[in-house]
Amino acid sequence: MAMALKKKPVTGMKDILPAEMEIRDYLIGLIKKTYKSFGFTSMETPCVEHIENLCSKQGGDNEKLIFKIMKRGEKLKIDQAKEENDLADGGLRYDLTVPLARYYANHSNELPAPFKALQIGNVWRADRPQKGRFRQFMQCDIDILGEASALAEIELILATTAMLGKLDFKNFTVCINDRGILRAMAAYSGFKEEDYDEVFIILDKMDKIGAEGVENELIEMGYAKENVETYLKLFDEVSADVTGIHYLKEKLGEYLPEETAQSMELIMSSVEEAKECEFNLKFTPTLVRGQSYYTGTIFEVTMDDFGGSVAGGGRYDRMIGKFTGQDTPACGFSIGFERIVMLLLENGYKVPAAKEKKAYLLEKKLPKESMLKVLAMAKKDREEGKQVLIVNMKKNKKFQKEQLTGEGYADIVDCYADRL
Amino acid sequence: MAMALKKKPVTGMKDILPAEMEIRDYLIGLIKKTYKSFGFTSMETPCVEHIENLCSKQGGDNEKLIFKIMKRGEKLKIDQAKEENDLADGGLRYDLTVPLARYYANHSNELPAPFKALQIGNVWRADRPQKGRFRQFMQCDIDILGEASALAEIELILATTAMLGKLDFKNFTVCINDRGILRAMAAYSGFKEEDYDEVFIILDKMDKIGAEGVENELIEMGYAKENVETYLKLFDEVSADVTGIHYLKEKLGEYLPEETAQSMELIMSSVEEAKECEFNLKFTPTLVRGQSYYTGTIFEVTMDDFGGSVAGGGRYDRMIGKFTGQDTPACGFSIGFERIVMLLLENGYKVPAAKEKKAYLLEKKLPKESMLKVLAMAKKDREEGKQVLIVNMKKNKKFQKEQLTGEGYADIVDCYADRL
Repeated sequence: MAMALKKKPVTGMKDILPAEMEIRDYLIGLIKKTYKSFGFTSMETPCVEHIENLCSKQGGDNEKLIFKIMKRGEKLKIDQAKEENDLADGGLRYDLTVPLARYYANHSNELPAPFKALQIGNVWRADRPQKGRFRQFMQCDIDILGEASALAEIELILATTAMLGKLDFKNFTVCINDRGILRAMAAYSGFKEEDYDEVFIILDKMDKIGAEGVENELIEMGYAKENVETYLKLFDEVSADVTGIHYLKEKLGEYLPEETAQSMELIMSSVEEAKECEFNLKFTPTLVRGQSYYTGTIFEVTMDDFGGSVAGGGRYDRMIGKFTGQDTPACGFSIGFERIVMLLLENGYKVPAAKEKKAYLLEKKLPKESMLKVLAMAKKDREEGKQVLIVNMKKNKKFQKEQLTGEGYADIVDCYADRL
Repeated sequence: MAMALKKKPVTGMKDILPAEMEIRDYLIGLIKKTYKSFGFTSMETPCVEHIENLCSKQGGDNEKLIFKIMKRGEKLKIDQAKEENDLADGGLRYDLTVPLARYYANHSNELPAPFKALQIGNVWRADRPQKGRFRQFMQCDIDILGEASALAEIELILATTAMLGKLDFKNFTVCINDRGILRAMAAYSGFKEEDYDEVFIILDKMDKIGAEGVENELIEMGYAKENVETYLKLFDEVSADVTGIHYLKEKLGEYLPEETAQSMELIMSSVEEAKECEFNLKFTPTLVRGQSYYTGTIFEVTMDDFGGSVAGGGRYDRMIGKFTGQDTPACGFSIGFERIVMLLLENGYKVPAAKEKKAYLLEKKLPKESMLKVLAMAKKDREEGKQVLIVNMKKNKKFQKEQLTGEGYADIVDCYADRL
């Protein structure tokens, strides 16, 4: 008697069917090839991390989203357990950044300096399930550790955009800002440092509620009308290209550190000159990005035909120090792998230069000698670079051929013993 | 004050450094390319499975090795929990076969028939840590579901050996047997069906303890001396090529099902004729393979310079039915990904046709105009297919260059503003 096993995947996670896998495999290949051409090297950490590292507040709100791994054997003491972390000693990683910091701390002596890391791997978050968002999803990060200069940002942006360009994405925009500019604009407008976080959370809504909405919310929160008006006037006056930086440099004076302005100018002009595909580069002083670990430049990629960002990143010079006790300059760019796959699927993207697919249909009970002939032909086809399928002929051969045509088999050969 | 975070990976799992990643990335690319050329298609399941599916005895002894995932939120009732499975609702998969069976049961209407699946993914087992064995490791399986004929075995063996051949492995051996032959030899010798499992466990030690050792153990277990002698004489007389099958067909008479012998003959002669690289194909009547789910053919690949197998598989026609209620013919071949990586690393394997690597060393405070020149040169290099690294020059330039040379950068360009 067959046992009743569960057929569906676990809640919020998905099985990936062949058509989507074809795009994913192609995308992973393209990512590796492109990023390696920019000098990045692959690395990998285990999917399971120490529970202490995951719960260390590096990841902000992510702790409650962790899939925790139960202790095993004698270490698991169910009757003495009072809280969750008495029972767990590990958890599935919720991003690739905390594991990268641990990896770098553990291996910095064995790694090139600077270390240009490429990671492609799954992460897990026990979010409320919703359409298009899954509890296991692929992340793809590039990070440069040990490079304090703007060269890091320039290369991260050039590499990421080169990769997106190869997927025929048009009209995407790289938005760029710096935490130093965010702070300088707030300081110039008269906000106090302890209020910055709250002000930035409201500023971050500019896209959705507009300047007036931001103004209203800030005033509702009790900030001085004068400060709020000064603040919003700045955003109104600043332009979205490198002249916006020049304007702020003059306007904000000593509130804006000289090196922040210089670095932004260098990044923007270098990227404009050296970019490998067409896109818009946009100085975006309203860009906040949520993660508290960013310390300098922040950037993201948005697409006209997609609400929300498809890539994001920035500089986080003080995270590695949490592991090593010594700060290491660090900057990263993460592409939204799943979003890009979704966009490609929706656009009916065809993987380019896929191999020619050929199928041999074998007559029922094909004698051994004929089978050997087919195997020899298939071998020759593969040597010519084809993908070859050998299958037994079904009763409904017409239907079988339609199915194979649908799977991309352009050349289908009937194999009867008397005709080989 | 920096917090003390843990730098080492969790017990029994490992960080993968760039040199090993280069080999892993290459191997994954080669596997995908080769198997796709045999008509296999990629598929993927979540790393987390239902705890019920993992604990359903499909995997035999694997249950106690499962990393269990704790329930979350209100579902976790620590004070009411009596045993482990009150606290867990999922677990990390310990192989790719149980998830494949679930996937096929869930999606068979959306999949080609037969379904030729390629899976490359991590699995987790909480084994006692030991040298060279890790608690997270990559598995790489190909399976053909819905193909009852020997065509499945032939293609699995041809594809797996073609892949190994492309890695320049020489002198490997494909050992092949059939559960039906195992049973027929035991029946002919007078063993009772209920004793087969015990007999086969002892037979499986032939490699280690020799025929005499097997004989002694069987007699110690209380089996009739006459049966044991008949049994061992069979192994002594049978040859390791297809004539061994002919011999058994005659000798065992009706104990050996006609279709088992025919299928073995067809597989062996087809593989010999159509194989795409040099290897030994060896009929191995002592081959047992532990997994209880095998129902017919079993096979494995051994290498002269490596104790133990580097790949294994067989037919398991009754597992899918555990999910669907209806048996589906199934046959698979799994390569020991981690063992192969280890062998390649030990042999100092060089990834073939790696891109030419070029590095630009930038003088300190290189002016923007010069930087742009370097970025333009790098772009051109990439267009020519090179991997390009741009880094700031260090104080000890000689040491830096030695390091880069060690990383494979053959062409290193000093970039001074006055010489660009």
